[in-house]
Amino acid sequence: MHEFDLDPEEVRRLGHRAADLVADHCATRTNGPVFGKVGGGAAVFDEPLPEVGCPADEVLDAAREHVLTHPFGNSHPRFFAFINATADPLGTVADYLASAMNSNCWGGDHAAIHVEDRVIHWIAEILGLPASTEGILTSGGSMANFTALAAARRAKSPRVREDGLVGTLPLVVYASEEAHSCVDKAVDLLGMGTRQLRTIPTDERFRIRVDLLRKAIEVDRADGLRPAIVVGNAGSVNTGVIDPLDELADTCAREDLWFHVDGAYGAMACVSPELRPLFVGLERADSVATDPHKWLYVPFEAGATLVREPGRLADAFRRPAAYLVHDPDGPLVGPVLFNERGPELSRGFKALKVWMGLKRHGRKGYAAAVEHDVAMARFLAEEVRGREDFELLAEPGLSIVNFRYRPRGRMLEEADLDRLNRRIANRLVASGAFFFAPTIVRGRTWLRIAIVNFRTREDDLQALVDEAARAGRAILDGD
Amino acid sequence: MHEFDLDPEEVRRLGHRAADLVADHCATRTNGPVFGKVGGGAAVFDEPLPEVGCPADEVLDAAREHVLTHPFGNSHPRFFAFINATADPLGTVADYLASAMNSNCWGGDHAAIHVEDRVIHWIAEILGLPASTEGILTSGGSMANFTALAAARRAKSPRVREDGLVGTLPLVVYASEEAHSCVDKAVDLLGMGTRQLRTIPTDERFRIRVDLLRKAIEVDRADGLRPAIVVGNAGSVNTGVIDPLDELADTCAREDLWFHVDGAYGAMACVSPELRPLFVGLERADSVATDPHKWLYVPFEAGATLVREPGRLADAFRRPAAYLVHDPDGPLVGPVLFNERGPELSRGFKALKVWMGLKRHGRKGYAAAVEHDVAMARFLAEEVRGREDFELLAEPGLSIVNFRYRPRGRMLEEADLDRLNRRIANRLVASGAFFFAPTIVRGRTWLRIAIVNFRTREDDLQALVDEAARAGRAILDGD
Repeated sequence: MHEFDLDPEEVRRLGHRAADLVADHCATRTNGPVFGKVGGGAAVFDEPLPEVGCPADEVLDAAREHVLTHPFGNSHPRFFAFINATADPLGTVADYLASAMNSNCWGGDHAAIHVEDRVIHWIAEILGLPASTEGILTSGGSMANFTALAAARRAKSPRVREDGLVGTLPLVVYASEEAHSCVDKAVDLLGMGTRQLRTIPTDERFRIRVDLLRKAIEVDRADGLRPAIVVGNAGSVNTGVIDPLDELADTCAREDLWFHVDGAYGAMACVSPELRPLFVGLERADSVATDPHKWLYVPFEAGATLVREPGRLADAFRRPAAYLVHDPDGPLVGPVLFNERGPELSRGFKALKVWMGLKRHGRKGYAAAVEHDVAMARFLAEEVRGREDFELLAEPGLSIVNFRYRPRGRMLEEADLDRLNRRIANRLVASGAFFFAPTIVRGRTWLRIAIVNFRTREDDLQALVDEAARAGRAILDGD
Repeated sequence: MHEFDLDPEEVRRLGHRAADLVADHCATRTNGPVFGKVGGGAAVFDEPLPEVGCPADEVLDAAREHVLTHPFGNSHPRFFAFINATADPLGTVADYLASAMNSNCWGGDHAAIHVEDRVIHWIAEILGLPASTEGILTSGGSMANFTALAAARRAKSPRVREDGLVGTLPLVVYASEEAHSCVDKAVDLLGMGTRQLRTIPTDERFRIRVDLLRKAIEVDRADGLRPAIVVGNAGSVNTGVIDPLDELADTCAREDLWFHVDGAYGAMACVSPELRPLFVGLERADSVATDPHKWLYVPFEAGATLVREPGRLADAFRRPAAYLVHDPDGPLVGPVLFNERGPELSRGFKALKVWMGLKRHGRKGYAAAVEHDVAMARFLAEEVRGREDFELLAEPGLSIVNFRYRPRGRMLEEADLDRLNRRIANRLVASGAFFFAPTIVRGRTWLRIAIVNFRTREDDLQALVDEAARAGRAILDGD
């Protein structure tokens, strides 16, 4: 036996040891700071490339001592930063099995392909897209949006793959000022140029101004450009807002534009009949990006691209290769060639955790979990509104709440308020008791709390507001 | 406790159960066919979206019965298809721990970022690139090449991110006819247009003709185009060949072109002092793509992009976002912002398996493992050459062998030989005893055997040639 190989009993022993490490990691989750800052401990990672190896148990010891002790923090009930979900522990078990199988998910008639195909069908069903919708799992929202926009680019410029964008009329993309930076990144990477991305202002609720969108399209047409793609938000990253998707769908239908919805964060909330009405029009999208590693609570990585019209993804991604030739009756003929639906050829088995999660919890289980987060956000908004030293930016659309400390009876300039709230955030994060990142909305700093966390409870949020108030007072008192 | 949450003892129990499933999966690896074709069993996956969930153990039962039983096959000693490595069992343990931590690896001062930073340094060291080299782990070779080519595109066209490729002189990319299809795909996705990808012929050993490359550059310059990027092969997918990298580096230096090396498959063989001389010139590359999930034997997914000049990746990928603002002394200031080195923002913890693997086996362990595969390929080539009914395409450069059945004393047209060899491949694969995919080289069909498999031994390869001969005779005899 090769030294890399292990007999099944050693695989079992190491697996059991790992299971213990994982369980111990869970048990001690709330003992230390939320974010496991490495700080002065960084030197331990500064090793030269090992010339000779060491026993597996010593490697596991190193992981236990130096790695598991410094987590990102998103398993903690008081982690509210970015949009990073806590992970379903069953998803971790699924990742372990998927890694052991080591399936390459480009295509073929093996189980992983059937599982991913099924998961894509289920996600389409959750979103209300037709059963003929095609899709693929991606690493996350950035690649999900990129993949959808590549399909849109090809649909709107049929010779783009061969000719590139050299010598063509610019394709114009429209999104609101609240769009995620990955839209900008995708437009850039796809060679369209960020100058061709129109940033449409939002209304007082941070939703895209459809009237201004229509005007922008008109101006571009008059200028001889090619309006091509509209990106709607189904849960914006900053404020959790959902654009008027039905109106966007109308506009796209009238103007013959590709209607893409960035639902990386929010779209999966369609799993809840209570929340589904917020997303009216999503079901009319040409493409949707949505992340199972957010509201389906699977561990990183799992995003998803869904495209309504069959064949559109293959139009953008199919690329024959000699070493993939195969017998039409052979094992490589499976239900889907995923390498023809995205930029990758070799692909890991991300679908197992989504499949196992949906089987374990069912649609109802996920609906309840998403509703829990939304209820927590509403609770926090209510809590903030009830306190005279705080200001709420807006009603939370989904599960993101922006608020700031604004002590009553003190006249503070806006710039001072910004500084004060940044200092509050720094103090709370430095204490290790919470983790979140402030944001800037319309030029002002807000404490941004994103709850995609089934562990968060009301007392965690009460504590957050209490501590923010305490920190604010202390800072103002020069403490 | 939320129903998604599990107490640590239940996490432990499920983890132990999973460890047993993984160990049992290993133990029975060679009991069934190499490729676990689903075939008529597909109906089991054809379920509606579950409305309500079921217990975790039932979900694990379903995975055990329907998924683990139908693997892709690349854990089997007789799997030789594509370039899909067997996985180090310790890498699976690492994936399990990484999933349990669920770290988001975009940046920050948590352990995962330090681990990925260290892994990038170690890979640069293996490749002989300077210590200042920057890099990022990717999903695999396709995204590794895409990421590098995005950096190259930006370096050669500084306004490309804002302006796109509209209205500019075409950027021309050069690669040999043996280049992987992902190069073509990247040129397409980056908006440069596949018409701007020059396919340079290869010599009798399938290496790029540098003289023809120079001529092509000259012609393009004369035509007013902008020669920009040369892609060299460090282990071509079809035949495992390494281009004359040193000559390519000379040409790029003289012509002021970006020198990218696609070493997704081969470059990691630099870990072996015995094989390193084959790659002379690699250390002069501006960028390299190489896959830990190939010759570092980690499970899917892990590719890597390395870029020599610091800042080039950030020039291509940096994109500020309001909700990522943070305190310069806070926990988000870590050693690297990986979201500024690639297309993704949220990213999983792929680095742990690479880090644990390099600690476990050391440089020497990997050198021996790679040398094993190369030795197996040479053994197979020798075996083929020693049999009068077989023909070898070429000496294997690394660990890919192309050969075909060509029975002595029978006059067969080339087209008949192609058909015969395809039928041999189908028969061997259908028997379940082997898994590989034939390929087409210069218009002819060859049995292509790629060995990135520490489990493969000489008797597996002898059996392959024996069975191919038996199948060939049987087919010719009308059986």
